[in-house]
Amino acid sequence: MFTGLSAFPLTPLANDEVDEGAFAGLVRRLAAAKVDSITALGSTGSYAYLTGGERRRVARLAVENAGDVPVFVGIGALRTSQVLANAEQAEQAGASGLLLAPMTYQPLTEDDVFELFRAVTAQSPLPVIVYDNPGTTHFAFSTELYGRIAELPGIASIEIPGVPDDPEQARERIRDIRSVIPAHVTVGVSGDAKAAAGLAAGCDAWYSVIGGTLPDPALRITRAAQEGRIADALAESERLAPLWRLFTEYGGSLRVIAAVAEQLGLAPRACLPLPILGLGERQRARVAGVLDDLGLGRASGG
Amino acid sequence: MFTGLSAFPLTPLANDEVDEGAFAGLVRRLAAAKVDSITALGSTGSYAYLTGGERRRVARLAVENAGDVPVFVGIGALRTSQVLANAEQAEQAGASGLLLAPMTYQPLTEDDVFELFRAVTAQSPLPVIVYDNPGTTHFAFSTELYGRIAELPGIASIEIPGVPDDPEQARERIRDIRSVIPAHVTVGVSGDAKAAAGLAAGCDAWYSVIGGTLPDPALRITRAAQEGRIADALAESERLAPLWRLFTEYGGSLRVIAAVAEQLGLAPRACLPLPILGLGERQRARVAGVLDDLGLGRASGG
Repeated sequence: MFTGLSAFPLTPLANDEVDEGAFAGLVRRLAAAKVDSITALGSTGSYAYLTGGERRRVARLAVENAGDVPVFVGIGALRTSQVLANAEQAEQAGASGLLLAPMTYQPLTEDDVFELFRAVTAQSPLPVIVYDNPGTTHFAFSTELYGRIAELPGIASIEIPGVPDDPEQARERIRDIRSVIPAHVTVGVSGDAKAAAGLAAGCDAWYSVIGGTLPDPALRITRAAQEGRIADALAESERLAPLWRLFTEYGGSLRVIAAVAEQLGLAPRACLPLPILGLGERQRARVAGVLDDLGLGRASGG
Repeated sequence: MFTGLSAFPLTPLANDEVDEGAFAGLVRRLAAAKVDSITALGSTGSYAYLTGGERRRVARLAVENAGDVPVFVGIGALRTSQVLANAEQAEQAGASGLLLAPMTYQPLTEDDVFELFRAVTAQSPLPVIVYDNPGTTHFAFSTELYGRIAELPGIASIEIPGVPDDPEQARERIRDIRSVIPAHVTVGVSGDAKAAAGLAAGCDAWYSVIGGTLPDPALRITRAAQEGRIADALAESERLAPLWRLFTEYGGSLRVIAAVAEQLGLAPRACLPLPILGLGERQRARVAGVLDDLGLGRASGG
C-alpha cells in the first residue's frame, strides 16, 4: 500500500474556514485519476494550521470521497497528546495509514522523536509513515534514527526529503537507508523535483505535492519508473522543470501549487491559511504561463 | 513599562495538564522579587504547545497572582485567526501587553509577517512586543522589517535574540536598530548569556528565561546595568557562566531552566510538554551541582 504515487491534496480555505466542497472535489479528482493513495493533511494540506475539529472533518471527507483509493492522514502536532488524539480521529475516520512529522517549536532530540513515534505506534493499530521534512520541522533525522524508529511495530514507510543529484550517490543513499530498516518498510521520496531521480534510485513511493493537484503528470513519472522506463520518467520530470524552478524561486512548493489549484478553478482565491499570503499578481501570471506552456492549463488536463 | 527585567516563568505541566498551583507559585515568587514585568506564555512558558483554553487560564492566573507587576502574554500561533483569538483572550484576562513571535511551519515572507503584526495591532488595544526568536520560529527578521513593523501603532518593544560579542559592535547593532524605529519603541535583549552585554550596549530591557525562575541574579544584573555599574553587571553574568554553558551543552535554556525549577521544588518532575523529555539523570545532577556552586540551590535564594 505504501508504494507508487501518494497524492497530497491541498486543504483549501475560504475566509479562514475549510472549503469542504473544494477539498472533496480535489479528492474525487485524485480518485478518478487512479493515484495509488491519497495523503490528506500533509504539509501541502496545511495540517499544522488546522484545529482538531477541522482535521477530523477533513479526514472524514477524504475517506468519503476517495472511493477505493486508500487514504493516509497527517497527524503531526507540537504536543504528543495532540498527536495521539489526531491518530485516534484518523482511525475513526477510516484512514488506512498515518503520516507523522516531528513538528518542532523547541528543537527536539533524537530520543524525544523516537519516543513520539513509540507512543503513536503503541496506541494506534494503523501503519505509520515517518515523515522527514526538515524544511518545515527543522528536525534532522539521522540514518541511525530511521533505523531505530523503523524497528517499531507499525512503521510502514519513511518519507525522505530527497536524494543526492548524482545517480550513483542517490542509489547509495537508498541502499544505506535500506540497510538499517526492515524489509517491509518502504522508502518514499518527497521534494517533487527530485522524485523521478528518487524513483530511479530505488524508492518505492513518491509522496507528491503536484500529485495532489496535477495527478496526470505525476502518474506518468511514477508509472514510467515502475515499469523500468527510467529515461521516460526522467524526461517527464525534465519537461516539468519550469514548474520546479517556480518552487525554488517562490520559496517552496506550497504557494505555487495553491496558485495552480486556484488558476485551475479547483480552489478559491487565497486558499492558504493566513499569515501565508500566497503569490502576488505577477507571480501568479508566471504560474499561469508555465501551466499553459506545459499543457496543464485546464483542470481536465490533470 | 517595556524596560528593565521581564521575567518569563515556565508553565509547568503534570501528567499533560497545566499545574496551576505550581504556575501561580512561580508568578507570586516573581512578584515578591519585584521584577519589572512578567511575561507569561513566552517560549519558556511553552505557549506553542498549549490549547486555547489552557492559554486563557494561564493568562488569568498570571494576572491574578502578579500583584502590581504588569503581565505580558504570549499570543503566537501558526494561524493568524488563532493569534487574534489569543490576543482577545489576553486582553480579557487583564494583560498589560502582548508578546508575538511569528511561528512558522511553512517558511514565511517578510510581507506575511508584517501583515500578521498589522492584523494584531489593528485589532487589539494592547501594546505589542515583537518577538524575534529565530531559534524556535526559524524566521529571520531583517533590520528593515523591524522598522516597518515598529511604525505600526501599538508596537511597544522589540525583543532581539542577542548582540555581537564585541562591545563596540554590540553598541553599533543597537544604534542600527534604533535608527529605524520610533523613539517610543524599546529594545530588549533575550538569550540570557548575552543579556548583560546587551544591557551594556544600550538595550532597555532584558526578556529573561532565568528571570522567571531565578529572579534574584537576573535582578542583580539588570539593576547594575540600569545604575550604570556595567562592570558589576558583566561580572555577575560572568559568575553565572557555568549556567550559560549548560544552556549551550543541553540544546538551549528551556530544558535546563525546567530542571532548575524541578530541582528547587518549584515545578513537578518532568514539567515540560511531551515530546520534550527534558534532561536525563546525569544532566540533572550537573544542574544541581552548578546551582549549589552558585549559591542558588535553594528556592528562597531566587
